[in-house]
Amino acid sequence: MISVVEARDIILSHVRPVGVEKVDLFSALDRVLAEDVEATRNQPPWDNSAMDGYAVRSSDTQTASETTPVVLRIVEHLPAGKRAKQEVQPGQTVHIMTGAPIPSGADSVVRAEDAIRVDDTRVRIVRPVSPGADLRRVGEDMAKGERLLSAGTVLRPAEIGLLASNNRSMVSVYRHPRVAILSTGDEIMDVGSELEDGKIIDSNGYTLPAMVMEAGCEPIRLGISPDTRTDLEKKLREGLMADVILTSGGVSVGEFDFVKAALDALGTTMEFWKVAMTPGRPLAFGRIQDTLAFGLPGNPVASMVTFELFVRPALLKMRGMSRLYRPTLRATLMEDIRKMPGRKQFFRMCLIEREGKLFTLRTGAQGSGILRSMSLADGLAITHEHQELLCTGEEVEIMPLGGALSFWHERSC
Amino acid sequence: MISVVEARDIILSHVRPVGVEKVDLFSALDRVLAEDVEATRNQPPWDNSAMDGYAVRSSDTQTASETTPVVLRIVEHLPAGKRAKQEVQPGQTVHIMTGAPIPSGADSVVRAEDAIRVDDTRVRIVRPVSPGADLRRVGEDMAKGERLLSAGTVLRPAEIGLLASNNRSMVSVYRHPRVAILSTGDEIMDVGSELEDGKIIDSNGYTLPAMVMEAGCEPIRLGISPDTRTDLEKKLREGLMADVILTSGGVSVGEFDFVKAALDALGTTMEFWKVAMTPGRPLAFGRIQDTLAFGLPGNPVASMVTFELFVRPALLKMRGMSRLYRPTLRATLMEDIRKMPGRKQFFRMCLIEREGKLFTLRTGAQGSGILRSMSLADGLAITHEHQELLCTGEEVEIMPLGGALSFWHERSC
Repeated sequence: MISVVEARDIILSHVRPVGVEKVDLFSALDRVLAEDVEATRNQPPWDNSAMDGYAVRSSDTQTASETTPVVLRIVEHLPAGKRAKQEVQPGQTVHIMTGAPIPSGADSVVRAEDAIRVDDTRVRIVRPVSPGADLRRVGEDMAKGERLLSAGTVLRPAEIGLLASNNRSMVSVYRHPRVAILSTGDEIMDVGSELEDGKIIDSNGYTLPAMVMEAGCEPIRLGISPDTRTDLEKKLREGLMADVILTSGGVSVGEFDFVKAALDALGTTMEFWKVAMTPGRPLAFGRIQDTLAFGLPGNPVASMVTFELFVRPALLKMRGMSRLYRPTLRATLMEDIRKMPGRKQFFRMCLIEREGKLFTLRTGAQGSGILRSMSLADGLAITHEHQELLCTGEEVEIMPLGGALSFWHERSC
Repeated sequence: MISVVEARDIILSHVRPVGVEKVDLFSALDRVLAEDVEATRNQPPWDNSAMDGYAVRSSDTQTASETTPVVLRIVEHLPAGKRAKQEVQPGQTVHIMTGAPIPSGADSVVRAEDAIRVDDTRVRIVRPVSPGADLRRVGEDMAKGERLLSAGTVLRPAEIGLLASNNRSMVSVYRHPRVAILSTGDEIMDVGSELEDGKIIDSNGYTLPAMVMEAGCEPIRLGISPDTRTDLEKKLREGLMADVILTSGGVSVGEFDFVKAALDALGTTMEFWKVAMTPGRPLAFGRIQDTLAFGLPGNPVASMVTFELFVRPALLKMRGMSRLYRPTLRATLMEDIRKMPGRKQFFRMCLIEREGKLFTLRTGAQGSGILRSMSLADGLAITHEHQELLCTGEEVEIMPLGGALSFWHERSC
């Protein structure tokens, strides 16, 4: 049986970004930039006022104070978006709004709160300003021609703003991988059905699409296939229009499992069938034409854990991301944990913070059918193959699960 | 001037969750549950097999070993989703698939790999099993009637799976707040326009919608309003159909700012106009009928920082969340930072990890017009009003920004 790391290396060696599309800035959030973007203009385009106030020659204000104010003559009232018609001469000022171009002659701005207006043509300056005070310099945000953003950048709100201020309305990003999801098994029924005796409800058909969305990809539901070769083949063929096919169930050693046979029939090159881990030991990976196929185990927890470890990094790589793994934390065990030597075992843990230190313990029973153990979990404890016993007080590595930073105490800054 | 904490307390005291709607499970990801959910059935509904193998009476297997296998008679081959017709008698076994109900008489499952099939009617068991081995017990995931999820729970994939396995196709969640966004200023033009001299491009009209989406809310763009009272009033009236109105620009002290006047004309109860912080000192908050109005500063960085500190927590509370603030980290300063005493100042910082310890320094020039300082930032350094100098080697509190956990080194587990 291959190890978790070997399995993931094999998978990632088969993964390429899925391709590029042009989207407008409102569809660009969290997408990965597929082009280098250069500044097409200076930002700001000219020296402008950072405040509402008075554009002055700083030399005029050097003696200004509350007791000995300097009186300047207002030669123009300048709203934002307008340019001054005249130059600021000694003893003169232009009343200026935030963002308005600095009139020639002026080298600084006196803030409105440091000036007392006498009337429409005169203002008392009560504090000296130094040259450049409250100016925004031409090109201080970006200079025309300089590299603004590089391909591979994840577009957060600030990057989207940078593109906008650079007058870009469309941007080239990696497209969303489409992920076809198929639940298999004669015993599986969909939500909403009248439950027959011996049947269970398909939860993987809901957890997996949610995990696909959380990874920034587009789920396509193929529904549920009974364990017959023809049904499976038909469904899997539909899945070939996607970039990835995920099946759940039907990959263990039972004779009633038809997934292998159906994948073979479609000409899938299988890379492996089993990984030395718990939960999730039965895990299949292969490719059919340009589509990657993951045969996930049917147990609700096993399918989620194998998705986290193998499918999610592959999907992120397809999206053009370079950081493929969730960051991990270290926490101190509050209980002894026995594990199977020879397998990497992943326990569902909750995290507790005490005096800034992280502690952790299991979320109750860890059976791979117990979905609730995932719902209660802040993260997965990552163990090493060779370990047999993890002891109270030992530090373990934890991979936080989606949205699970809840253990961090909040500061109201 | 009021402090950041005072301002936020005032804001949050005006915020209530915006209301509840029923959505299907595919629209439920990251929504907040607005009802308590109880288990309507046992999960699993009956004792079933955790593995493919042979359902046995464990007592029959006690002497089994590779050298002295126990031969059992296969009385039935049981696919998942079917119930056994007969009881397992001593010396008998039922060939069983993962998920299939345990036949009466049997108390455990021998895994297929611990059994050697002789023919259709006989199998050699080569390892003893204890009672309960590889059984999934009825109700081990959830017992009928027990509380499954409580109102206020954020729905992650595992919770959505729990709802599915509980046969819930619709669920009651808090609806998305609608947030109307208006940029103001005669100098502002939209992306894609031929730039006239003295004009600048509206980046807030792109960063703010992205931040609204990132907070799980629905942005409504009101576009750009010139600084005339009538235009502003008209646009703001359109915004009253939203739960929140965000304006940017036009809230500083200049006479050319019409936002105050327009808000007054709409009968807005203003709570405050200024907060002791940098960037973002001019910040207005009030309410018009049932709509909350935030007057954000026009500077790109100031509008983003004030959104993070004041608007985002309000939006999360409207979504029914209880954790309103981003978690914070502590990092060691790699440079001295001078700040204005009397104001809480927020610096854009990048984070660097060395030997598991976090270090931080500013992302270059911090002018509130320099959007790039946000694009380069992993987070915001939170300072205290009284501070004047932060010294190299000092620990500072950092609020990571959206998607900015990039500083965490990755482990390939």
